[in-house]
Amino acid sequence: VRVLTLARDLRRRKARERQGLFVAEGVRAVEELVRSPLAIVGVLLAPQLADAPRGAALRASLAARGSELSDVSEREFASAAETEAPQGVLAIGEIPDRSLASLTAGPRLRLLVLDAVQDPGNVGTIVRTAAALGADATVALPGTVDLWNAKVVRSAMGAQFHHPAFAGTWDAVEAFLAAHGIPLWAADANGEPVGTLRAAWRTSSGGGAPGPLALVVGNEGAGLSQLVLARASQRVSIPIAPMIESLNVAVATGILLHELRP
Amino acid sequence: VRVLTLARDLRRRKARERQGLFVAEGVRAVEELVRSPLAIVGVLLAPQLADAPRGAALRASLAARGSELSDVSEREFASAAETEAPQGVLAIGEIPDRSLASLTAGPRLRLLVLDAVQDPGNVGTIVRTAAALGADATVALPGTVDLWNAKVVRSAMGAQFHHPAFAGTWDAVEAFLAAHGIPLWAADANGEPVGTLRAAWRTSSGGGAPGPLALVVGNEGAGLSQLVLARASQRVSIPIAPMIESLNVAVATGILLHELRP
Repeated sequence: VRVLTLARDLRRRKARERQGLFVAEGVRAVEELVRSPLAIVGVLLAPQLADAPRGAALRASLAARGSELSDVSEREFASAAETEAPQGVLAIGEIPDRSLASLTAGPRLRLLVLDAVQDPGNVGTIVRTAAALGADATVALPGTVDLWNAKVVRSAMGAQFHHPAFAGTWDAVEAFLAAHGIPLWAADANGEPVGTLRAAWRTSSGGGAPGPLALVVGNEGAGLSQLVLARASQRVSIPIAPMIESLNVAVATGILLHELRP
Repeated sequence: VRVLTLARDLRRRKARERQGLFVAEGVRAVEELVRSPLAIVGVLLAPQLADAPRGAALRASLAARGSELSDVSEREFASAAETEAPQGVLAIGEIPDRSLASLTAGPRLRLLVLDAVQDPGNVGTIVRTAAALGADATVALPGTVDLWNAKVVRSAMGAQFHHPAFAGTWDAVEAFLAAHGIPLWAADANGEPVGTLRAAWRTSSGGGAPGPLALVVGNEGAGLSQLVLARASQRVSIPIAPMIESLNVAVATGILLHELRP
């Protein structure tokens, strides 16, 4: 089966990048893909889908959307799936063509930048959080896990089917920020408390919307790269108890995006 | 080896509850346990620990603490470990004796209550977040995953070795809140936006500290139980984009605890 071979191949990042395709696994992720504007180029189904909650309904809505459905055995399905207990459905979708060039740099812009965030579960949760809290885009700098990795797709719960999340170089981000006069704030344990910064920022804007902003967050262990820290106009922290080393990066990103919302 | 048998047995919740013991796995978790006030009743070591970063130093600090060290083969170790790629160290610790009775209900009290939160990674991250953001205690209601489950311990990164997190019944929580006049706010997508509530709350307290508070969060899918919702004096929400179904429960808890800090 062509779709089976393709799904196996797309487990590798290089194959995803070359083909511009990704895999969404499980009932929840495929439901979200069906609801999204992204193109679906093939669907793999195994017998156990009939027993999964909402499985039969999903099969019907995939058929109604005109997707090519390929039925395979449970064993063949498992050879393509990355999930431990696969629910018997995966869909191959087209990675949307997104970049900084398609962003409008309005006064309420919120841009999230990920600097070498490696855990796929955290990155998926961050994309979901950024979409939920109204960020306009999320840019993954080199060193960050591939945004179309199956584990990221699963933990993002469909958020990146709508929210523009894409890979970008530091040079591209820097050029975009410079061209539009957008300040960059870096999440850093040694920064100023976010509450203090937020209050000062609102005061300086006369109580109005304080303008566009880019926020960069890094790896929990290693922190931000020197290059990024040097370019940031402000370092921002979340005060925490001395016993605790750090917040989870997705939790920290959520708090900062919420505090710094337009 | 006695410690090997015990570690295997403690994979079951019933065994942990009966013996009052838990297992911390991996270099990071055991390092945190060594630094904590909790008693260590035994340590299991496998040869690969010598190759792990900080592995040799950890062995030395365990020996210096006077812990009983049991060396086993890599294979025996794997039979007790729950991690997929075990680092060759696990320690058995005593579950501290904690309950609502040992809490002081001062004016700045923050109590976090978990209502049937089932994912161990999320619960560990929540405990870490609650500790970091200064909550006084975290109570896990029935239906919530065991706080001393190895996966919870791992993702809490040692937070519960310091922060009082314990299981409790709804009756016990309700009695504690009633006895001390502590309001209960429930995280609920249909509630009032947290920013609005926070502003009103601070105004009503004349700008001072707005008093003690308990916050209850539930399962992302199912939400809070009717019993808990009925008892809450306030329902509090985090405004999110319409495309996104919900925030991750650990991220939502972080935003609410940060917004409602004393």
